[in-house]
Amino acid sequence: MIPFKTLISIDKKAAMPVYQQIANGLINIIREGMIKPGTRIPSSREMAGVLQVHRKTIVAAYEELSAQDWITAIPRKEITVSKHLPELKPRSFRRTVNTASYNGSQANFFMRWREAASAPAEKQRFRLVINDGFPDARIAPVDNLLRHYRLFLKKTYQEGFIMHGDAEGSANLRSAIASFLSDTRAIHSGNNNILITRGAQMAIFIAARMIIKPGSSVIVGEPSYSIANMIFEHFGAKLIKVPVDENGIDVDAIEKICKKKRPDLLYVIPHHHHPTTVTLSADRRMKLLDIIRNHKLPVIEDDYDYDFHYNRTPILPLASADHNGYVLYIGSITKSFASSVRIGYLLAGSEFIWQAARLREMIDIRGDVLMEEAMAILFKNGDMQKHLKKAVKIYQERRDSFCSMLESELGNITRFTTPAGGMSVWVQFDKKYTVSVVAKKLAGKGLFMGDGSFYNSGKVNYNAVRMGFASLNKKELEEVGSILRGIR
Amino acid sequence: MIPFKTLISIDKKAAMPVYQQIANGLINIIREGMIKPGTRIPSSREMAGVLQVHRKTIVAAYEELSAQDWITAIPRKEITVSKHLPELKPRSFRRTVNTASYNGSQANFFMRWREAASAPAEKQRFRLVINDGFPDARIAPVDNLLRHYRLFLKKTYQEGFIMHGDAEGSANLRSAIASFLSDTRAIHSGNNNILITRGAQMAIFIAARMIIKPGSSVIVGEPSYSIANMIFEHFGAKLIKVPVDENGIDVDAIEKICKKKRPDLLYVIPHHHHPTTVTLSADRRMKLLDIIRNHKLPVIEDDYDYDFHYNRTPILPLASADHNGYVLYIGSITKSFASSVRIGYLLAGSEFIWQAARLREMIDIRGDVLMEEAMAILFKNGDMQKHLKKAVKIYQERRDSFCSMLESELGNITRFTTPAGGMSVWVQFDKKYTVSVVAKKLAGKGLFMGDGSFYNSGKVNYNAVRMGFASLNKKELEEVGSILRGIR
Repeated sequence: MIPFKTLISIDKKAAMPVYQQIANGLINIIREGMIKPGTRIPSSREMAGVLQVHRKTIVAAYEELSAQDWITAIPRKEITVSKHLPELKPRSFRRTVNTASYNGSQANFFMRWREAASAPAEKQRFRLVINDGFPDARIAPVDNLLRHYRLFLKKTYQEGFIMHGDAEGSANLRSAIASFLSDTRAIHSGNNNILITRGAQMAIFIAARMIIKPGSSVIVGEPSYSIANMIFEHFGAKLIKVPVDENGIDVDAIEKICKKKRPDLLYVIPHHHHPTTVTLSADRRMKLLDIIRNHKLPVIEDDYDYDFHYNRTPILPLASADHNGYVLYIGSITKSFASSVRIGYLLAGSEFIWQAARLREMIDIRGDVLMEEAMAILFKNGDMQKHLKKAVKIYQERRDSFCSMLESELGNITRFTTPAGGMSVWVQFDKKYTVSVVAKKLAGKGLFMGDGSFYNSGKVNYNAVRMGFASLNKKELEEVGSILRGIR
Repeated sequence: MIPFKTLISIDKKAAMPVYQQIANGLINIIREGMIKPGTRIPSSREMAGVLQVHRKTIVAAYEELSAQDWITAIPRKEITVSKHLPELKPRSFRRTVNTASYNGSQANFFMRWREAASAPAEKQRFRLVINDGFPDARIAPVDNLLRHYRLFLKKTYQEGFIMHGDAEGSANLRSAIASFLSDTRAIHSGNNNILITRGAQMAIFIAARMIIKPGSSVIVGEPSYSIANMIFEHFGAKLIKVPVDENGIDVDAIEKICKKKRPDLLYVIPHHHHPTTVTLSADRRMKLLDIIRNHKLPVIEDDYDYDFHYNRTPILPLASADHNGYVLYIGSITKSFASSVRIGYLLAGSEFIWQAARLREMIDIRGDVLMEEAMAILFKNGDMQKHLKKAVKIYQERRDSFCSMLESELGNITRFTTPAGGMSVWVQFDKKYTVSVVAKKLAGKGLFMGDGSFYNSGKVNYNAVRMGFASLNKKELEEVGSILRGIR
């Protein structure tokens, strides 16, 4: 008899019933080939003695094994491992070390990024965090949102509507967004022009997948949002990089490229370009609209930061003008609310949206229906608008405090421009201060800051970092200031 | 003077300040070419009279326009539309009807589905819903989950850790899932073998994208989960369809295919195959493991329904055996909890998971960090395990009631087998009763049921529907029964 006692581990405190633990243990033993098909196994009485459990427990385990066809029991005679099971060489899964012995179609692509990737994020927790530009969830009406979430949970079953939620997203939220966009951005759209996504990120992913094929060419800024670049290249596009200056992306350079050969896509971030936070100027916008129409140039307008302007009202999006349907407009509710509530949207013609929704269905069927319904309520009863008004005021103050702190603490070793909006400052460090080294120093003092590698594309090293000010309250800002002071 | 009064609409009750409404109105007028670059516009006093607002409001609007460089003001002399703006022909976005005048790389693919798609879902709400097999969120500890969610919202800022949540998903949830899988499925894995996704759906999407390239061949059951088929074809795979009988997918047929030429992927649903709900038998599993090892066949094991067995304990997954790293294992927390809480997971070798996480980052950066942390708590304090125990008991009762209701109300016009687990029954209707016609009839009585088209792949029409029993309580079941009675 093989040493069942050592091979089958029984934990009487475990959630899984003991008989089931025994059955699973025996299955493993059979599978690993330690008992061959047709071999007799101990009677329930014998086994109960060996494993020191009640005989009824073994009977239950054997019934289970028999039901699953692993063993064959001839009542009052013998119990054997079923004969029709194929024979296996003994070898356990738990002893195989490497489970990645295959090589998929994407392996090469990802290996490029593997090499470029910075060291895995430290697992330590930080007392303070300078992020890339996230909202402060503490000032958002999250309790209010969750209250509606719970109400909908109950309502939903009464009215039955959650069960067939659309891949396009909650119709209520889509219509709330349509009127919000009309009010704030002069974009006029209907429900069937809107796809709700998981944050603006999924909207970029979907739009890119719809347009790009291997060999496509995509114009992006230099620098630009690196995960968008990664998406475009992932789908096989060649990036054409165009300079970004203090007035945004270089529109003349775009025109020159279009005159030679029309690219398949332009990716543009008009408000608070990522990472440099500049705004595309009004005259460049007009010129860009001209180029779009003349050259029939499809555009992804990633306007994630529209709702946060401090010095003046935002410039209306390209999508609000006459663009002949070439502009796909992307916005973010995540940025207006809390990073954990990942809701964004994609605006386009209704046929495009229909197709995009089929793609979204493949990616994750639909969003969190209750969260979307709850969010729709916040828009409809005006709580979101009130929140935005308040948030803009608070973030403007935080921007001002943060920038004067930066000026006094790091003014002589960095360059930055106070951003006109958004949630972060683009800070370039003097050559003598390598951002990754600075970041390591700060980490030692309990302050997380990115090492800057996220913003470098290809060979350019900006030695810069986006410093998010929006989620730091007064006390935190003071602490950050006193830690930053230490790095000079 | 153009009729500013009719062209600029002012709503004093709107969230947007009046001066901003006027500024945006003027921008539209300029953009639409109604006033040309260099043209004089009315003084603030004149304009205030025309629009019937206070002069200060116009001054603010003009300051805004000037800051945005749309107009040029020579103090005490005149205000003109900026000369450097390019000239535009007047045409409004709002008047263009079709915004989908482009043709993306995916258009053809989606058009195939467009043709196959059934009529858009009715917008009406139903009193009762027979879904595809969803859990009943009313019996899940959702309040408990939301309580932890809110606690984390506060804690998070104190501890700073949310800001750099991993694309792999919450480390706490990954380790909770690792021990859950070890306890319930004898799968032994570590944090770096697990990627948290948005439901099992995203896990299928990501795994497929990692493995499939145009021209790949993928073995699937006939019938099989249609959205998975859609994903495989979307990425360019050719489907090889293999019969599914009452013991699951035909393993001999798989072997025959492998002997000719190894396919790139096998997609298998061992517990409660979608849509037919059959379980892959123990001996077929063993044989399949042999095939996987001998032919080095990569497999997606979609085990979304493992936690719901009523007649006996589940058969251990392929992933728990010795598979040499060829099995990618997918599970669902959504199914164990509530359809709106979309959390699933993908298990694989650590290098595969690292790459898959980069893909997930492109798709939606990361999940809802707070929800994942809250869910981890439910696993760690045993609330999830308690819930599952309770849910299995309730669903077993509901299955039994539902099947006897089916037998008595529709027994003579349908065929079905009581499923050993899961949340739905696969019900095939007699030819005389076309499912789509039945569905329409039921809709008229306030009961939603799918029209069956979702389960038909290619040319096969099963005239069948999955009837979800898990989310119908006793009262709802009675009502469903009395409505179903009416269709004979």
